Amino acid sequence: MTEPGKPVNRGNNLDPWYHHYAQRTSGLSASEVRALFAVASRPEVVSLAGGMPFVSALPKELIATALDRVMSEQGAVALQYGSGQGIPALREQILEVMALEGISASADDVVVTTGSQHALELFSKLFLDPGDVVLAEGPSYVTAMVVFRSFQAEVDHVPMDEHGLIPEALREHIRRVKAAGRTIKFLYTVPTFHNPAGVTLTWERRLEILEIARDNDILVLEDNPYGLLYFDERPPAALRSVEQEGVVYLGTFSKTLAPGFRVGWALAPHAIREKLILANEAAVLSPSSFTQLVISQYLDEADWKGQTDIFRGVYRERKEAMLSALGEYLPELKWTNPTGGFYVWLTLPDYLVSKAMLPRAVKELVAYTPGTAFYADGSGRHNIRLAFCYPTPENIRVGIRRLAAVINGEMDLLDTFAGTGSLDAVRLDRNSAGLPSDLP
Amino acid sequence: MTEPGKPVNRGNNLDPWYHHYAQRTSGLSASEVRALFAVASRPEVVSLAGGMPFVSALPKELIATALDRVMSEQGAVALQYGSGQGIPALREQILEVMALEGISASADDVVVTTGSQHALELFSKLFLDPGDVVLAEGPSYVTAMVVFRSFQAEVDHVPMDEHGLIPEALREHIRRVKAAGRTIKFLYTVPTFHNPAGVTLTWERRLEILEIARDNDILVLEDNPYGLLYFDERPPAALRSVEQEGVVYLGTFSKTLAPGFRVGWALAPHAIREKLILANEAAVLSPSSFTQLVISQYLDEADWKGQTDIFRGVYRERKEAMLSALGEYLPELKWTNPTGGFYVWLTLPDYLVSKAMLPRAVKELVAYTPGTAFYADGSGRHNIRLAFCYPTPENIRVGIRRLAAVINGEMDLLDTFAGTGSLDAVRLDRNSAGLPSDLP
Repeated sequence: MTEPGKPVNRGNNLDPWYHHYAQRTSGLSASEVRALFAVASRPEVVSLAGGMPFVSALPKELIATALDRVMSEQGAVALQYGSGQGIPALREQILEVMALEGISASADDVVVTTGSQHALELFSKLFLDPGDVVLAEGPSYVTAMVVFRSFQAEVDHVPMDEHGLIPEALREHIRRVKAAGRTIKFLYTVPTFHNPAGVTLTWERRLEILEIARDNDILVLEDNPYGLLYFDERPPAALRSVEQEGVVYLGTFSKTLAPGFRVGWALAPHAIREKLILANEAAVLSPSSFTQLVISQYLDEADWKGQTDIFRGVYRERKEAMLSALGEYLPELKWTNPTGGFYVWLTLPDYLVSKAMLPRAVKELVAYTPGTAFYADGSGRHNIRLAFCYPTPENIRVGIRRLAAVINGEMDLLDTFAGTGSLDAVRLDRNSAGLPSDLP
Repeated sequence: MTEPGKPVNRGNNLDPWYHHYAQRTSGLSASEVRALFAVASRPEVVSLAGGMPFVSALPKELIATALDRVMSEQGAVALQYGSGQGIPALREQILEVMALEGISASADDVVVTTGSQHALELFSKLFLDPGDVVLAEGPSYVTAMVVFRSFQAEVDHVPMDEHGLIPEALREHIRRVKAAGRTIKFLYTVPTFHNPAGVTLTWERRLEILEIARDNDILVLEDNPYGLLYFDERPPAALRSVEQEGVVYLGTFSKTLAPGFRVGWALAPHAIREKLILANEAAVLSPSSFTQLVISQYLDEADWKGQTDIFRGVYRERKEAMLSALGEYLPELKWTNPTGGFYVWLTLPDYLVSKAMLPRAVKELVAYTPGTAFYADGSGRHNIRLAFCYPTPENIRVGIRRLAAVINGEMDLLDTFAGTGSLDAVRLDRNSAGLPSDLP
């Protein structure tokens, strides 16, 4: 036997198994958002970066009561393996949740997953071959794009405006991708209270986009984590409410209850649902019986619709705090006005780069997510995603005030050098200070 | 817009999206074990099929106490997203669990997963390209093979005997696979209380197999769900206790606590661990904070080693019940004598096919898993996996008595036709009765 610790020539110094990985693994890298979490979690930083729901607005007694009931009445089931599709009673309750979005379905077509993130992963595993194209809004949800890339697919971003994805742009992108001989596997969309853009697809566009998808034989993956968190009026009904065979719908309890349970679901046409169950069994055998039963018990006994109203009020107040602070401290900039959900999308002047500015912002004790995180193609350099879901309204004001100081400081600095030919010097300065080097 | 319900020519009648799936999806099919679960769960059937731990031996108060503490002291953390690597306190406690298997490690190298099944899936996603070969014992764990196949890899079975994987056979298989120009990505092994074979790799062979792996630049994936469930003597220390850089180790709380929480882990060399975390984040964002904290609290407060002793006693008694019943009712057959774990591997006379016999067994109210489920290559036709973990000792006796009646009935039937040239008629009979058609 070789002596323990004796180096063997298997790969490189950092990783002896370097040459053994699958091809897909080369596309796996830490998202910019993830890297921020460590920094932004310091208590003195006002984080407008992460999309963590404000779970403190959920009375703990409601959960404690559900836990007691599960252990006293269904303990043996809760502790055991379950079915790869999920617990039947919970799947029936999920129908009631989806009915609020206009969806009519059968519990047979619901597959419970480890958060809706895992439904994204399983669906992608079922559909994506290397080189396939996924159409998605530009910008789009970071960790969806990480999943698509991990199966060696490419994201083609379709532009949005304040009414959501632009149908004519979708037609044009489909034409271009097909003309290039590429295979479009599906359209990934967050039609309601978009992450990160904070906009909602209008009803007319929903119908038009479904028609385009149908005409072009493109499956639609509708991701709807925020739909029930509207501020005033209900958003238009889900795409799945109109079209059954051409839409796979993803939902979750992470935003209306708590992400710590990791319970989400997919609603899919029969044949796809069958394959999702098999993929789920291969991946985790079965989703957690315990957390499924706790949620089922909560839905059964608690006033969950009333609790969702409470969450809506919390997030409405925070959104208003953010927009009012933006109006006060950064009136010269543009931002979206979300009617629900967690996010505002801010546009900087085009000589400011959000990622380059981030270290200074963190030094000033405010964190955000740079716009480039939400694009596969390097776009979004002058954008920022601001999440208003987690900090208190007071802290949101403090955060925006700090952000304004950073932005105004950057603008003053650039103004100082404007016309002096010294912008290159500024650039150099930044790089030598160890800042990201992608200034415009 | 197309009218709702109007058929569109996208695939076939059963699945309009048939042509859209990824290539890997064609390998995804329901395992034989899964198909059995529905049948075997009828209360009148004694199921010796599924490997469900006997969670009723876990006092519910221990879990209820942990739940109370988590909600009262760490509720906001439990309900929130966590890290993709898992909760630090739990990773420290996992070191204590692994120390019982002779493993010394850093909590930095532990990645918590949604059951160790998900560690298998993530590891396979990182390493397997289409056409790669995975070496595994013959027989091997069903759902590991499902995962490998789902990434388009092939399993090459290395024979075992009563001392586990045979080193000389491993050398020979490596030679053959390499000579065929194929890429071996790793050796998947369950060295201790093997599922389904019920045997344990000796200490001498552990050293030899690690040496073979090292010499041939083959990574070892050590899956150890049962190691702490020994009946009398501790098994040899884990492969990972000897070799750090060349072994990725998988552990779980599903067998020593409860599978309903879906908490397992991987212990991996640094570079692989980094990639496992990224793959985990892509797949589920983070494993459930809630179930991780419940387990952490349980480990902290309960006498978990004492509870593991209780489980050991339960399973020892059931194993003895099964072996004693086999000795009484089927003395002419051969079976393995496990020194821990959940399974006995039974060998039928070679004119009996376990899968063909199963419908008759279920009719006689006993279920088992046919041996072919545990091979990728059609072997195991004359084997049966008997799981003694879940039924009571009394029911195990009843189950084996029923199984003996079925086996003896089949043997009598064959004896009746022996020498009459009518065995073909027997075969025909079975097929026309809708039984599986793979009689020898």
